[in-house]
This record gives sequence, C-alpha cells and structure tokens, in this order.
Amino acid sequence: MNSDDGNGKLIYLDHASTTPMRSEAFDAMLPFMRSHFGNPSSIHDVGQQARKAVDESREKISTLLGARSSEIVFTSGGTESDNAAIKGAAFAMKSYGNHIITTQIEHHAVLHSCQQLERFGYEVTYLPVNVHGMVDIEDVKNAIKPTTILISIMMANNEIGTIQPISEIVEEVNLKSEEIGHKIIVHSDAVQCVGTLPIDFKSIGIDMLSASAHKFQGPRGIGLLIIKRNTPFEPLLIGGGQERDRRSGTENVPGIVGMSKALELAVIEQNENNKKTIYLRNKIIFEILNSVENSYLNGDTHNRLPNNVSLCFDKVEGETILLGLNFAGIFASSGSACSSASIEPSHVLLAIGRSEELARSALRISLGATTEIEDIDYLVQILSGLIHKMRSMPIMAD
Amino acid sequence: MNSDDGNGKLIYLDHASTTPMRSEAFDAMLPFMRSHFGNPSSIHDVGQQARKAVDESREKISTLLGARSSEIVFTSGGTESDNAAIKGAAFAMKSYGNHIITTQIEHHAVLHSCQQLERFGYEVTYLPVNVHGMVDIEDVKNAIKPTTILISIMMANNEIGTIQPISEIVEEVNLKSEEIGHKIIVHSDAVQCVGTLPIDFKSIGIDMLSASAHKFQGPRGIGLLIIKRNTPFEPLLIGGGQERDRRSGTENVPGIVGMSKALELAVIEQNENNKKTIYLRNKIIFEILNSVENSYLNGDTHNRLPNNVSLCFDKVEGETILLGLNFAGIFASSGSACSSASIEPSHVLLAIGRSEELARSALRISLGATTEIEDIDYLVQILSGLIHKMRSMPIMAD
Repeated sequence: MNSDDGNGKLIYLDHASTTPMRSEAFDAMLPFMRSHFGNPSSIHDVGQQARKAVDESREKISTLLGARSSEIVFTSGGTESDNAAIKGAAFAMKSYGNHIITTQIEHHAVLHSCQQLERFGYEVTYLPVNVHGMVDIEDVKNAIKPTTILISIMMANNEIGTIQPISEIVEEVNLKSEEIGHKIIVHSDAVQCVGTLPIDFKSIGIDMLSASAHKFQGPRGIGLLIIKRNTPFEPLLIGGGQERDRRSGTENVPGIVGMSKALELAVIEQNENNKKTIYLRNKIIFEILNSVENSYLNGDTHNRLPNNVSLCFDKVEGETILLGLNFAGIFASSGSACSSASIEPSHVLLAIGRSEELARSALRISLGATTEIEDIDYLVQILSGLIHKMRSMPIMAD
Repeated sequence: MNSDDGNGKLIYLDHASTTPMRSEAFDAMLPFMRSHFGNPSSIHDVGQQARKAVDESREKISTLLGARSSEIVFTSGGTESDNAAIKGAAFAMKSYGNHIITTQIEHHAVLHSCQQLERFGYEVTYLPVNVHGMVDIEDVKNAIKPTTILISIMMANNEIGTIQPISEIVEEVNLKSEEIGHKIIVHSDAVQCVGTLPIDFKSIGIDMLSASAHKFQGPRGIGLLIIKRNTPFEPLLIGGGQERDRRSGTENVPGIVGMSKALELAVIEQNENNKKTIYLRNKIIFEILNSVENSYLNGDTHNRLPNNVSLCFDKVEGETILLGLNFAGIFASSGSACSSASIEPSHVLLAIGRSEELARSALRISLGATTEIEDIDYLVQILSGLIHKMRSMPIMAD
C-alpha cells in the first residue's frame, strides 16, 4: 500500500504482519454489518438469510482450497486455528500416545501450544532446520515413534519465507503410521501462504490446515481450520454446537463473507501478483546484498514466499533500522509482528544458525499486491544509506 | 428493528439471539477497516495507530464496566470468553482441587465446557434452580467442599431472563473460601445482560465476567473476558502473547473499536431504554396471559431482564408458533438461538420444572431499543390469534 498523508509518500512493506483489507471484501461484508444482521442459528427469515451467506462462503472457500465444504471450520483467526488444531488433535488422540513432533521455527501459536501440552504430560520433539530453514524429511521420519500422534509443520515460515516440502513429509508419515499401527495427524500452519501460494488440501494430504483472513486482504478476527473428514478432534471452543460441533460460538457472518471474497480474488490474482512480487523481491535482495557489505539473506533462495525478504546486517540493530525506515515513510518489520516488541532475538533466526547479535539486526520486508517498483527503488536507496550511516556512527563501530 | 421490505412490516423480536449493529459502532469501525489497518504489534506508525485505538477502547470499556483496563481481555465472543474462563481457571487451579460448581440453566458454552472438563478428571456439581429459575444461595454454600476451585453462575439467563443474586453469592463464597483455605474463582456469564443491566465488576466481587458485543448492538466476532488482577489463569489461546499473555492472536481492531462505541452508547441509553422495554415487556406478558388460556410465563417476574418475555402454551408446538409469526413478519425464537435447530426441549425449561411437552411450546420474545408499542400490539394480536387457531385444528386437539 502506498499513500500520501500530506507529509510525503508512505510505503507499507509489512504485509506479512497484516494487509489492508481490499475494498471488494469490505463491500461484500457491508450488507451483513447493516441490514442482514441475523444469527444463522435462528430459524426465522432474518436468521436464514445469514445462514445462506455462511453456507455459500463455506462452499466457495472449500472449492478454492481443494477441501470438502464440511471440512471447513470457521475460527477467529490463525492463532485460534493453530491452538484448536494442536490441542484438539492431542486431546483426541490421547489413547494412542502422547508424542508430538514439530519444528523449531514454527509460529509461537504452534510452539506455545506444544509447550502448554508438555505441561499436560505430552512429549514434544522440536526438529531443527538447516541453514535455509528447511526441515529434513529424514529427521521427521526418525523422530516418529509408536507414541507419536501429531506432527505440526508450517507450510511457509512467517519470518524467513522458507516453504517446506509438506506433501513429501506426509508420504513418509503415512508409511510410518502404517508401521506403528495408528493414525498420525498432520497439521500445517499455512497462515502465511494461503492466498499467496496455490493450496489443494486434498492433494497435499495433510489432516488439518490453519489460515487467517487478514493475511490475504480479508477482514480481522476471522480465519479457518480445515479438518479432514474423520480426523479425531476435541473442540477448543464448545457450546452451542456451531460448525458441526467443532467450533461453537455465534458465526461472524460479515467476517466469513469478507474472507471468502478476499480469498476468491487472491486466488484469481495469484499468478500475476506472484510474478510481480518475485521480481521485486529478487530486486531488493540483489541490490541490498550488492550495495551493503556484510549483509545476509535469511531463508531459502528458491523455496521461498514470493513476497518475503529477510535480511541481517553486521553491526547494526534491527530496531534502529526500523525506526530509520519509519522516519522515511517505509513500514517494515524486524521479524514477526507478534514479537516485534520483544527484546529476545528471533527463535527462527537462531534455528538457522544466526548468532544472537546478527539475529538482532533482522529486517523483514514483505511485499503486497500494490507494491510498485518505485517503492522498491526508494527502499533500497534509503535502506543502504541508513545502514552505511549507522555503521559509520562511532557508537556502532565497537 | 422494524423495517418494511415491500411485503409489509417486519418486526424483529429476537434481540437476545443477536442485535443489529448500531450505526455509530459501524462508523467508529470504518477507519479501521479501511485506512488504519495496522497490526497493533508492529512498531511502525501504521501499527502504533492501531495500538492507540485498542488502548483507548480498552480504557473506555474498563471504565464503563467498573474494571481496571489491564483486567479487560478481548476475545472473539461470548463462547470463547466462557470457554477460556472455565477451562483457564480449572487448569490453573488444578493443584488446589478438581471440583467445579455451576447451575443447570447455564448457556451451553458453560455447560459443555464443564462436561468437557469432567472427561479430563474434574468433578462438576450442576445446581438446580427454583421454579422461577433462581439459584438458592444456600445450595451454593452447601455444595462447596475443600476441592472446590471454581464457581460459574450466569448473571442473567438467556432463555427465561432470570437475574441471579451474584453479589450475595460471592459474599458467601468468600467466607467459605477462607474456611477451606484457598481461593475459589467465581465466574459469571454476563453475555445476556452487559449493555442492558448496569455492571460494576469491582463491586459485584466476581473474578471473571464474559460478554459479547453483538448482544448490545456491537459487531460480530468480538467479546471480552474480564479477569480480576492476580486471578490464576491458563490461557486458552496461546501464541504471540497479545492481551498480556492471556489471549494471543492479532487483535481484531475494528471489532474492539466498534464494541467500545456500542457499549458506551448502550450504557448511556440504558435507563431510558429499560424503562420503555420493561413497559412493553409487561404489556406483552399481561395481554398474552390474559387473552390466551393455559399460557404460562417462564422465569422470575421481578428479577428479570427488561427485554425478555418467555412463554409456554399448552397443546401447541413452539416451532409452529415461530413459523406462524415469521409468516406474519414477526421474528422471535423458541429458546436460545444456538439450539433453535435442536429437537431437544430446552434444558433451562426442564430445570424450572416444565414438562417436556410444555417446554416444546416455548416462545422467547426479546425486545430492542427500537421496538415500538405498535409492534407489540401487532404481536399480541397475531400471537393470540395464532394459538387459538392452532389449538382449534383437529390434529392439535389430541
């Protein structure tokens, strides 16, 4: 998003944190925030009008993501979806074992859910990743044991953009699952890539997938969890029995309708947008690595989100870079937005082998559909100037 | 809400299920759905603009409900708040005991959470209520034992409108708590009365309170849980650490802003609205009980939500009444919206001693700020005619 607030150009390059909602999604929501306000559980006309909108949105989303409509469960967002998936599977599978496998670079919604389960007597293996942030399929295979009930591996990393070979992992898991004689549920946090990467739930072969609307220009406070038919699941939110007893609570009808519209358009525009953002992404990477000495790209060069640039720089502080960019009207992030306020270095950057010091210099630039080449030229100019200046200041030159 | 869709007047009398969002709430949300779209966790200007709106809304809501701003936790709605409160307290208090006390007339979000905890080894006492739906304070006292850790009693019932003496219950619980030597957490589901009844969290003396915005003309998908300072709490949604680690997930900024505006106006207009709805409520009750033989009011006459009418009728089916009213452009409910589709008779009506047959005839009429006397005259005329007609049909005359 680029806008002018009267004080000069503003360039938003933090689309991995959140995206501006697109106007078509807003327009689709509008009637359901005004006249069509019914509760879908009410049997009268006002309720049934809302029910119809929810059903149609569910149908549309399921088609866009290659799932059955009955497999789509609407939630309040990515964090709820991850929590519901991990705890829901772990509790439902308790009779088969207590072992969970995940990776060291998951979003905190997954990592902290796993840590919470450890306090409830579960055992969790946190798999390492290589320097590019890739999980080794052999590591997954070797970690599986007779008590393994759940594997949660993210589809694409929110900080460094690395895309994992989920389908290949599922194939190996299924073989192992046959060996140990019971199902192992595979969940993938796809919050960072739904809308950006093509997703075909059925062909990927996983059992559960999390997504969040505000990451693909949809509304806030709405997301989804796909739960494959017959997957054991203990609901996190229980009550009125909505969402086929898998997620109770009065449906957020405007949110559901807005998410469905945003996803529809994101999928339609996916190819063209990605072509453009990949070009701009590579331009940033190339120009910064070339113009700034001792700068490093984090994450995989090829298996990488089209809109993600993650960089580290010797001898500068990430927060100072962010404030300098902000001063120039450029909005970016140090790592994930969720932990921006944290002084801890990113667990993802430490997992790919960055030192604590280098991890603290991290800058994440995440592009959007409206990012233009002029924005990138301006960013590169400002950013390289900023880092040279920061390094030349006496206090930074230790 | 009364509107004309070209086919005649439409009268919405199902405000306990959900309310139309008021235009002031929509207007307040608008900028945060369009230009001010930042993630409050982002440290750049776009993020901080959103952070400021969340902080201001939290401050305003805390003042309106008599709590500290740090005690307000934003959630996705009433069901999440209830689930988070009950499971969060139960898990956090595990070292003190496993006994929970609630009532037989709670919302399913509370009842099913308790039942879920029974499967996790907790013991739950479901207290009865009297014919008016009132909990006996002596019953609460007598149910408390050394292992009691949590008591959840709703402030006002969603089906029959009975208001419980929560402050008095808290006083007794505190005395008992001193006796047994550890804290007993008291939660109250106030989803049905926040906005309608004056709430002063501190003076009520409870530890946790649930509310939902769409019940007081606020937006969907947003609610709150008040958690008193120092109350042991294990978060239901864990991850990025938002809401002081008590509820993770990117904040639903438009929802929060809209809820705060809706609550502000609901509180300002509370007295005047209640005067009017109490008058209209009593008019319905009086006229129906007078004009329809063998009709019964459910719930307490005095300790009753200003906008709730709950009736039962001999020898008619609730669903048939609803469809008849719907045909006449009047939208009401059989019991709670959440279980409208259910064929089971209401657990609340059974708990106050209604027979299964009578419970199946239930009709809930819930008024709103825009309900007018003409609507009520029309309702009474249609409803009494409908029931006389239904009873005179050969098939109903058994």
